[in-house]
Amino acid sequence: MESVGIVKTEYFNLDKTLTLESGKTLQGVKIAYETYGKLNEKGDNAILICHALTGDAHAAGKNNENDKKPGWWDTMIGPNKAFDTNKFFVICSNVLGGCKGTTGPSSINPETGKEYGHSFPVITVEDMVKAQYELINHLGVKKLTAVGGSMGGMQAIEWSIRYPELVKSVIIIAAAARLSAQGIAFNAVGRNAILFDPNFNNGDYYDKKHPEVGLSIARMIGHITYLSEKSMHKKFGRNFKDKPIFDFGVDFEVESYLDYQGRIFVDRFDANSYLYITKAVDYYDPISKYGSLENAFSNTNAKFLVISFTTDWLFSTAQAKEIVNSLIKIDKNVSFIEIESPCGHDAFLLEFDKQTRIIKAFLT
Amino acid sequence: MESVGIVKTEYFNLDKTLTLESGKTLQGVKIAYETYGKLNEKGDNAILICHALTGDAHAAGKNNENDKKPGWWDTMIGPNKAFDTNKFFVICSNVLGGCKGTTGPSSINPETGKEYGHSFPVITVEDMVKAQYELINHLGVKKLTAVGGSMGGMQAIEWSIRYPELVKSVIIIAAAARLSAQGIAFNAVGRNAILFDPNFNNGDYYDKKHPEVGLSIARMIGHITYLSEKSMHKKFGRNFKDKPIFDFGVDFEVESYLDYQGRIFVDRFDANSYLYITKAVDYYDPISKYGSLENAFSNTNAKFLVISFTTDWLFSTAQAKEIVNSLIKIDKNVSFIEIESPCGHDAFLLEFDKQTRIIKAFLT
Repeated sequence: MESVGIVKTEYFNLDKTLTLESGKTLQGVKIAYETYGKLNEKGDNAILICHALTGDAHAAGKNNENDKKPGWWDTMIGPNKAFDTNKFFVICSNVLGGCKGTTGPSSINPETGKEYGHSFPVITVEDMVKAQYELINHLGVKKLTAVGGSMGGMQAIEWSIRYPELVKSVIIIAAAARLSAQGIAFNAVGRNAILFDPNFNNGDYYDKKHPEVGLSIARMIGHITYLSEKSMHKKFGRNFKDKPIFDFGVDFEVESYLDYQGRIFVDRFDANSYLYITKAVDYYDPISKYGSLENAFSNTNAKFLVISFTTDWLFSTAQAKEIVNSLIKIDKNVSFIEIESPCGHDAFLLEFDKQTRIIKAFLT
Repeated sequence: MESVGIVKTEYFNLDKTLTLESGKTLQGVKIAYETYGKLNEKGDNAILICHALTGDAHAAGKNNENDKKPGWWDTMIGPNKAFDTNKFFVICSNVLGGCKGTTGPSSINPETGKEYGHSFPVITVEDMVKAQYELINHLGVKKLTAVGGSMGGMQAIEWSIRYPELVKSVIIIAAAARLSAQGIAFNAVGRNAILFDPNFNNGDYYDKKHPEVGLSIARMIGHITYLSEKSMHKKFGRNFKDKPIFDFGVDFEVESYLDYQGRIFVDRFDANSYLYITKAVDYYDPISKYGSLENAFSNTNAKFLVISFTTDWLFSTAQAKEIVNSLIKIDKNVSFIEIESPCGHDAFLLEFDKQTRIIKAFLT
């Protein structure tokens, strides 16, 4: 498949104060983003791709000829792909609180000249969307399709609730209107691993050794929840990497996988961002905020596509159906598909053939 | 229900060398155990209770008038209970590698006069059972019912494979013949949290601060797997302990639960034992060892009772059925019951009414 080619991450500086859900404010917020394709004259062919927990603005193409890998959803974004850049103006921005160019805890606090660290205010999914809104406005978008997998799906939901005049369609993939108690539990243990890492130093570690152990433990826990029992069985089974070592190092193949995922993650992600973003995911709860999902969705006229995967246990089909049923109840336009896949939650990043067919049909 | 009353933990010293699966040996092994009820003259009314990951020999009654809580399976062991001490001689011993009186990594190595720590040899479920066998012999038992939940179920399986002449019946509860890749993954992450705790010091921490952070993280991960998504939802839902704190401390009720479980665990358990025992669980695999479960069970003439719980996802009904089907295939006597329970893996400790009815019927 054709690629969008070489793309450049751009930066948008908010010239106004961003007031957060917590009541706190942020000055001088910068948003990292990429765009693929062209905005039409009416400004109504825009698609905003909202990324998941550890994603970034670089969703498609390469930033450099020599990049080994393209953007994180390159299989889905490009000419004739699910998000067809011949037709659509596709935007992806790094979330508020992130560490990939958008203002977050590792950014310099203009008031102190030092990294925010733990002084960064707790942000919510609503705050992420409010910041994205400023970017979308700046880009001249008049009508938007909001798309997201996992935490990105929560942002897409929030877009439809918060900006009904702007959002004409919504694609929610492998997501839920709110995290389960079990999901909060996994995030909490990951955060604890970071918070109690002696290198965490109350979030003030940027000029020292980072809390890499805690962050890698958090990532390993995450990866268990991204796979399914079935996919783990298929991928690794009970195979040893070599033969039993009769010690506590990397022994089984599944251990080797987790070890690797933990190791590479600390090179590309900031522990504070992990705390702030998982907390935003835990907090997101339009059901509790509006009394019901029907109330939350009452003002939207967007058409919705909800996709779940059979073996996703982090954001299950039951949770997807909660969204779908609430939309049906208030006579909104909604399509729902559960895709058969052994890949667990990761399926939204892997099952691009099936998703492409469904999304193409939905977008035309 | 009546209790077994005040019981005393006793100790048995092996006078011979214990040769382990790894080929290594252990000298001067001590086994902590308790017994309830009386062995009959024929020595054929004995029931061995095999404990789970973090259990101990103190399964029933109180060790002291002032004890706040009775033993860990007091609901099941006692006069007229599932394991009726009016009829049976019930034995429970702490596993090899444990930290509750039986020789383990926190025991003094007679050769050095110091705690074993990481110099303790890696042990297996087979080794645990071999050590228990010496105790059973010492107690004069001629016929045995082997019972266990979770890792205890693995020991019960091993008893039937290894000592077919001794084992007349087997009760396997919330267990599997081998851990899934996902189960290994959870254990591995918990072990990593301990191994990379800076206080771990390669297992040599007994005169210093213990790796409490790592051990509590491991325990929190464990507790997520012991509950079900359903029971977490029922117990905690998305309730806040108080109101949202907009910070990273204990916020949701489920976080408070995990935090508490992590905290109390470090006072009662040794991090090295956690490493050794989870490793034993990971390694246990009679299917791979004997080529098939049918081969593994070929010499037993015991009758089997296998119990699983609907929401147990750590040791699922599918895994229980693997045991049952292999026994059926080779014409062994096996009963199987899946108990409806929302309690997840913890059900074997909580659903005593249902288990009592089933087990009483099986034992008579």
